[in-house]
Amino acid sequence: MQEFYLRKIRKMTPCQLIETKEARGIEERFAEKIKEIEARGLEKHLKDDYIVCLLDGGKEMTSADFSLFLEKRTLSSAKVLTFIVGGFLGLAERIFKRADVCLSLSKMTFSHELCRIILLEQIYRSLTMMKGKSYVK
Amino acid sequence: MQEFYLRKIRKMTPCQLIETKEARGIEERFAEKIKEIEARGLEKHLKDDYIVCLLDGGKEMTSADFSLFLEKRTLSSAKVLTFIVGGFLGLAERIFKRADVCLSLSKMTFSHELCRIILLEQIYRSLTMMKGKSYVK
Repeated sequence: MQEFYLRKIRKMTPCQLIETKEARGIEERFAEKIKEIEARGLEKHLKDDYIVCLLDGGKEMTSADFSLFLEKRTLSSAKVLTFIVGGFLGLAERIFKRADVCLSLSKMTFSHELCRIILLEQIYRSLTMMKGKSYVK
Repeated sequence: MQEFYLRKIRKMTPCQLIETKEARGIEERFAEKIKEIEARGLEKHLKDDYIVCLLDGGKEMTSADFSLFLEKRTLSSAKVLTFIVGGFLGLAERIFKRADVCLSLSKMTFSHELCRIILLEQIYRSLTMMKGKSYVK
Protein backbone atom coordinates (compact mmCIF):
# COMPACT_ATOMS: atom_id res chain seq x y z
CA MET A 1 0.00 0.00 0.00
CA GLN A 2 2.90 2.29 0.81
CA GLU A 3 4.40 1.58 -2.63
CA PHE A 4 1.02 2.13 -4.27
CA TYR A 5 0.75 5.71 -2.96
CA LEU A 6 4.47 6.44 -3.45
CA ARG A 7 4.21 5.52 -7.12
CA LYS A 8 1.18 7.75 -7.55
CA ILE A 9 2.81 10.69 -5.75
CA ARG A 10 6.01 10.36 -7.78
CA LYS A 11 4.05 10.80 -10.98
CA MET A 12 3.22 14.29 -9.73
CA THR A 13 6.20 15.39 -7.67
CA PRO A 14 9.60 14.10 -6.49
CA CYS A 15 9.24 12.22 -3.24
CA GLN A 16 11.84 10.32 -1.30
CA LEU A 17 11.17 7.90 1.56
CA ILE A 18 14.07 7.47 3.96
CA GLU A 19 13.99 4.86 6.70
CA THR A 20 16.53 5.62 9.40
CA LYS A 21 17.85 2.93 11.68
CA GLU A 22 15.99 1.82 14.76
CA ALA A 23 18.08 1.63 17.92
CA ARG A 24 17.97 -2.09 18.68
CA GLY A 25 19.21 -4.18 21.56
CA ILE A 26 18.56 -1.50 24.19
CA GLU A 27 15.96 -2.10 26.90
CA GLU A 28 12.83 0.00 26.64
CA ARG A 29 13.43 1.62 30.04
CA PHE A 30 16.34 3.48 28.44
CA ALA A 31 13.86 5.34 26.26
CA GLU A 32 15.84 8.58 26.18
CA LYS A 33 18.96 6.77 24.98
CA ILE A 34 16.99 5.03 22.25
CA LYS A 35 15.42 8.30 21.11
CA GLU A 36 18.85 10.01 21.20
CA ILE A 37 20.37 7.37 18.91
CA GLU A 38 17.40 7.53 16.57
CA ALA A 39 17.53 11.35 16.53
CA ARG A 40 21.15 11.24 15.33
CA GLY A 41 20.06 8.97 12.47
CA LEU A 42 17.37 11.47 11.50
CA GLU A 43 19.57 14.55 11.80
CA LYS A 44 21.96 13.23 9.17
CA HIS A 45 19.19 13.76 6.63
CA LEU A 46 17.92 17.16 7.80
CA LYS A 47 19.37 20.27 6.26
CA ASP A 48 17.46 23.48 5.90
CA ASP A 49 14.21 21.55 5.44
CA TYR A 50 10.74 22.66 6.43
CA ILE A 51 9.96 20.02 9.01
CA VAL A 52 6.60 18.51 9.91
CA CYS A 53 6.73 16.07 12.83
CA LEU A 54 3.92 13.65 13.44
CA LEU A 55 2.95 13.91 17.08
CA ASP A 56 0.03 12.82 19.27
CA GLY A 57 -1.44 16.09 20.46
CA GLY A 58 -0.12 18.01 17.46
CA LYS A 59 -2.25 20.19 15.22
CA GLU A 60 -5.19 18.35 13.67
CA MET A 61 -6.11 19.27 10.10
CA THR A 62 -8.92 18.29 7.80
CA SER A 63 -7.87 16.94 4.40
CA ALA A 64 -8.77 20.35 2.93
CA ASP A 65 -6.60 22.15 5.54
CA PHE A 66 -3.76 19.77 4.78
CA SER A 67 -4.11 20.35 1.06
CA LEU A 68 -4.02 24.14 1.56
CA PHE A 69 -0.99 23.75 3.81
CA LEU A 70 0.85 21.72 1.16
CA GLU A 71 -0.10 24.18 -1.56
CA LYS A 72 1.15 27.12 0.51
CA ARG A 73 4.43 25.36 1.23
CA THR A 74 4.94 24.55 -2.43
CA LEU A 75 4.29 28.14 -3.49
CA SER A 76 5.99 30.06 -0.70
CA SER A 77 9.33 28.37 -0.41
CA ALA A 78 11.91 26.32 -2.26
CA LYS A 79 12.71 24.46 0.96
CA VAL A 80 12.41 20.71 0.96
CA LEU A 81 9.31 19.66 2.90
CA THR A 82 10.13 16.81 5.26
CA PHE A 83 7.68 14.74 7.29
CA ILE A 84 9.08 12.84 10.24
CA VAL A 85 7.31 9.82 11.70
CA GLY A 86 8.83 8.59 14.95
CA GLY A 87 9.56 5.02 15.91
CA PHE A 88 8.26 2.78 18.66
CA LEU A 89 8.98 5.27 21.45
CA GLY A 90 8.38 8.43 19.49
CA LEU A 91 10.89 11.17 18.77
CA ALA A 92 13.52 12.96 20.87
CA GLU A 93 12.45 16.37 22.09
CA ARG A 94 15.08 18.20 20.08
CA ILE A 95 13.56 16.84 16.86
CA PHE A 96 10.18 18.30 17.86
CA LYS A 97 11.85 21.60 18.74
CA ARG A 98 13.31 21.74 15.27
CA ALA A 99 9.92 21.13 13.65
CA ASP A 100 8.07 23.95 11.93
CA VAL A 101 4.75 22.18 12.45
CA CYS A 102 3.67 19.27 14.67
CA LEU A 103 0.82 17.42 13.04
CA SER A 104 -1.59 14.88 14.50
CA LEU A 105 -3.43 12.59 12.09
CA SER A 106 -6.07 11.59 14.62
CA LYS A 107 -6.96 11.50 18.29
CA MET A 108 -6.22 7.79 17.95
CA THR A 109 -2.71 6.41 18.12
CA PHE A 110 -1.65 4.54 15.01
CA SER A 111 1.36 2.29 14.44
CA HIS A 112 4.17 4.15 12.71
CA GLU A 113 3.76 1.93 9.64
CA LEU A 114 0.13 2.96 9.41
CA CYS A 115 1.01 6.65 10.01
CA ARG A 116 3.30 6.50 7.01
CA ILE A 117 0.60 5.06 4.78
CA ILE A 118 -2.02 7.56 5.98
CA LEU A 119 0.40 10.42 5.40
CA LEU A 120 1.22 9.21 1.88
CA GLU A 121 -2.48 8.83 1.12
CA GLN A 122 -3.16 12.39 2.32
CA ILE A 123 -0.25 13.78 0.29
CA TYR A 124 -1.53 11.97 -2.79
CA ARG A 125 -5.09 13.18 -2.09
CA SER A 126 -3.81 16.76 -1.70
CA LEU A 127 -1.74 16.72 -4.87
CA THR A 128 -4.75 15.39 -6.74
CA MET A 129 -6.98 18.12 -5.28
CA MET A 130 -4.38 20.75 -6.23
CA LYS A 131 -4.41 19.51 -9.78
CA GLY A 132 -8.19 19.74 -9.75
CA LYS A 133 -8.78 16.05 -10.25
CA SER A 134 -11.57 14.34 -8.40
CA TYR A 135 -10.37 11.95 -5.77
CA VAL A 136 -11.97 8.64 -4.90
CA LYS A 137 -13.30 9.08 -1.38
CA MET B 1 -2.23 -5.21 5.55
CA GLN B 2 -5.94 -5.86 5.98
CA GLU B 3 -5.29 -9.60 6.06
CA PHE B 4 -2.43 -9.08 8.52
CA TYR B 5 -4.69 -7.43 11.11
CA LEU B 6 -7.62 -9.76 10.40
CA ARG B 7 -5.46 -12.80 11.12
CA LYS B 8 -4.25 -11.27 14.38
CA ILE B 9 -7.77 -10.30 15.48
CA ARG B 10 -9.14 -13.76 14.68
CA LYS B 11 -6.62 -15.32 17.04
CA MET B 12 -8.40 -13.40 19.81
CA THR B 13 -12.03 -13.18 18.76
CA PRO B 14 -14.33 -14.17 15.89
CA CYS B 15 -14.35 -11.48 13.22
CA GLN B 16 -16.04 -11.48 9.86
CA LEU B 17 -15.41 -9.04 7.05
CA ILE B 18 -18.28 -8.63 4.62
CA GLU B 19 -17.92 -6.61 1.44
CA THR B 20 -21.29 -5.65 0.04
CA LYS B 21 -21.75 -4.77 -3.60
CA GLU B 22 -21.02 -1.33 -4.94
CA ALA B 23 -23.74 0.16 -7.12
CA ARG B 24 -21.97 0.40 -10.46
CA GLY B 25 -22.93 1.89 -13.78
CA ILE B 26 -24.96 4.76 -12.31
CA GLU B 27 -23.82 8.36 -12.78
CA GLU B 28 -22.51 10.06 -9.65
CA ARG B 29 -25.20 12.75 -9.84
CA PHE B 30 -27.69 10.07 -8.85
CA ALA B 31 -25.98 9.82 -5.47
CA GLU B 32 -29.14 9.05 -3.52
CA LYS B 33 -30.00 6.18 -5.83
CA ILE B 34 -26.50 4.75 -5.46
CA LYS B 35 -26.65 5.03 -1.67
CA GLU B 36 -30.13 3.47 -1.67
CA ILE B 37 -28.94 0.42 -3.63
CA GLU B 38 -25.87 0.08 -1.41
CA ALA B 39 -28.01 0.42 1.74
CA ARG B 40 -30.12 -2.54 0.64
CA GLY B 41 -26.95 -4.61 0.27
CA LEU B 42 -25.91 -3.66 3.80
CA GLU B 43 -29.33 -4.25 5.38
CA LYS B 44 -29.33 -7.88 4.31
CA HIS B 45 -26.53 -8.44 6.82
CA LEU B 46 -27.88 -6.39 9.72
CA LYS B 47 -30.01 -8.10 12.31
CA ASP B 48 -30.18 -7.00 15.90
CA ASP B 49 -26.55 -5.85 15.76
CA TYR B 50 -24.99 -3.03 17.73
CA ILE B 51 -24.02 -0.76 14.83
CA VAL B 52 -21.09 1.63 14.59
CA CYS B 53 -21.05 3.71 11.40
CA LEU B 54 -17.90 5.46 10.29
CA LEU B 55 -18.78 9.05 9.54
CA ASP B 56 -16.93 12.34 8.98
CA GLY B 57 -18.08 14.49 11.85
CA GLY B 58 -18.87 11.49 14.06
CA LYS B 59 -17.56 11.02 17.57
CA GLU B 60 -13.78 11.10 17.80
CA MET B 61 -12.17 8.73 20.27
CA THR B 62 -8.63 8.21 21.46
CA SER B 63 -7.31 4.65 21.18
CA ALA B 64 -7.88 4.31 24.95
CA ASP B 65 -11.51 5.52 24.59
CA PHE B 66 -12.03 3.08 21.74
CA SER B 67 -10.59 0.24 23.76
CA LEU B 68 -12.88 1.05 26.70
CA PHE B 69 -15.82 1.24 24.33
CA LEU B 70 -15.03 -2.21 22.88
CA GLU B 71 -14.55 -3.66 26.34
CA LYS B 72 -17.86 -2.26 27.52
CA ARG B 73 -19.66 -3.62 24.46
CA THR B 74 -18.14 -7.06 24.95
CA LEU B 75 -19.14 -7.19 28.61
CA SER B 76 -22.55 -5.55 28.48
CA SER B 77 -24.23 -7.29 25.60
CA ALA B 78 -24.31 -10.46 23.57
CA LYS B 79 -25.21 -8.44 20.47
CA VAL B 80 -22.94 -8.70 17.46
CA LEU B 81 -20.87 -5.54 17.10
CA THR B 82 -20.91 -4.34 13.50
CA PHE B 83 -18.80 -1.57 12.01
CA ILE B 84 -20.01 -0.09 8.74
CA VAL B 85 -17.66 1.74 6.39
CA GLY B 86 -19.42 3.47 3.52
CA GLY B 87 -18.42 3.49 -0.09
CA PHE B 88 -17.38 6.21 -2.50
CA LEU B 89 -20.39 8.44 -1.76
CA GLY B 90 -20.86 7.49 1.87
CA LEU B 91 -23.90 5.86 3.42
CA ALA B 92 -27.64 6.38 3.07
CA GLU B 93 -29.18 8.38 5.89
CA ARG B 94 -31.32 5.50 7.12
CA ILE B 95 -28.16 3.48 7.80
CA PHE B 96 -26.83 6.31 9.99
CA LYS B 97 -30.19 6.54 11.73
CA ARG B 98 -29.98 2.86 12.59
CA ALA B 99 -26.46 3.28 14.04
CA ASP B 100 -25.91 3.16 17.80
CA VAL B 101 -22.71 5.18 17.45
CA CYS B 102 -21.25 7.26 14.62
CA LEU B 103 -17.47 7.23 14.83
CA SER B 104 -14.92 9.46 13.14
CA LEU B 105 -11.36 8.18 12.86
CA SER B 106 -9.88 11.58 12.15
CA LYS B 107 -10.65 15.12 11.06
CA MET B 108 -9.05 14.02 7.80
CA THR B 109 -10.99 12.10 5.17
CA PHE B 110 -9.52 8.72 4.33
CA SER B 111 -10.31 6.37 1.47
CA HIS B 112 -12.68 3.61 2.55
CA GLU B 113 -9.94 1.01 2.01
CA LEU B 114 -7.73 2.91 4.43
CA CYS B 115 -10.60 3.36 6.92
CA ARG B 116 -11.01 -0.39 7.00
CA ILE B 117 -7.33 -0.97 7.72
CA ILE B 118 -7.24 1.73 10.41
CA LEU B 119 -10.32 0.27 12.04
CA LEU B 120 -8.87 -3.24 12.02
CA GLU B 121 -5.62 -1.93 13.49
CA GLN B 122 -7.52 -0.14 16.27
CA ILE B 123 -9.59 -3.24 17.03
CA TYR B 124 -6.44 -5.33 17.19
CA ARG B 125 -4.75 -2.69 19.37
CA SER B 126 -7.76 -2.64 21.70
CA LEU B 127 -7.99 -6.42 22.02
CA THR B 128 -4.29 -6.51 22.82
CA MET B 129 -4.71 -3.78 25.45
CA MET B 130 -7.66 -5.67 26.96
CA LYS B 131 -5.56 -8.76 27.27
CA GLY B 132 -2.88 -6.68 28.96
CA LYS B 133 -0.26 -7.23 26.31
CA SER B 134 1.99 -4.37 25.32
CA TYR B 135 1.32 -3.11 21.84
CA VAL B 136 3.95 -1.85 19.42
CA LYS B 137 3.25 1.86 19.00
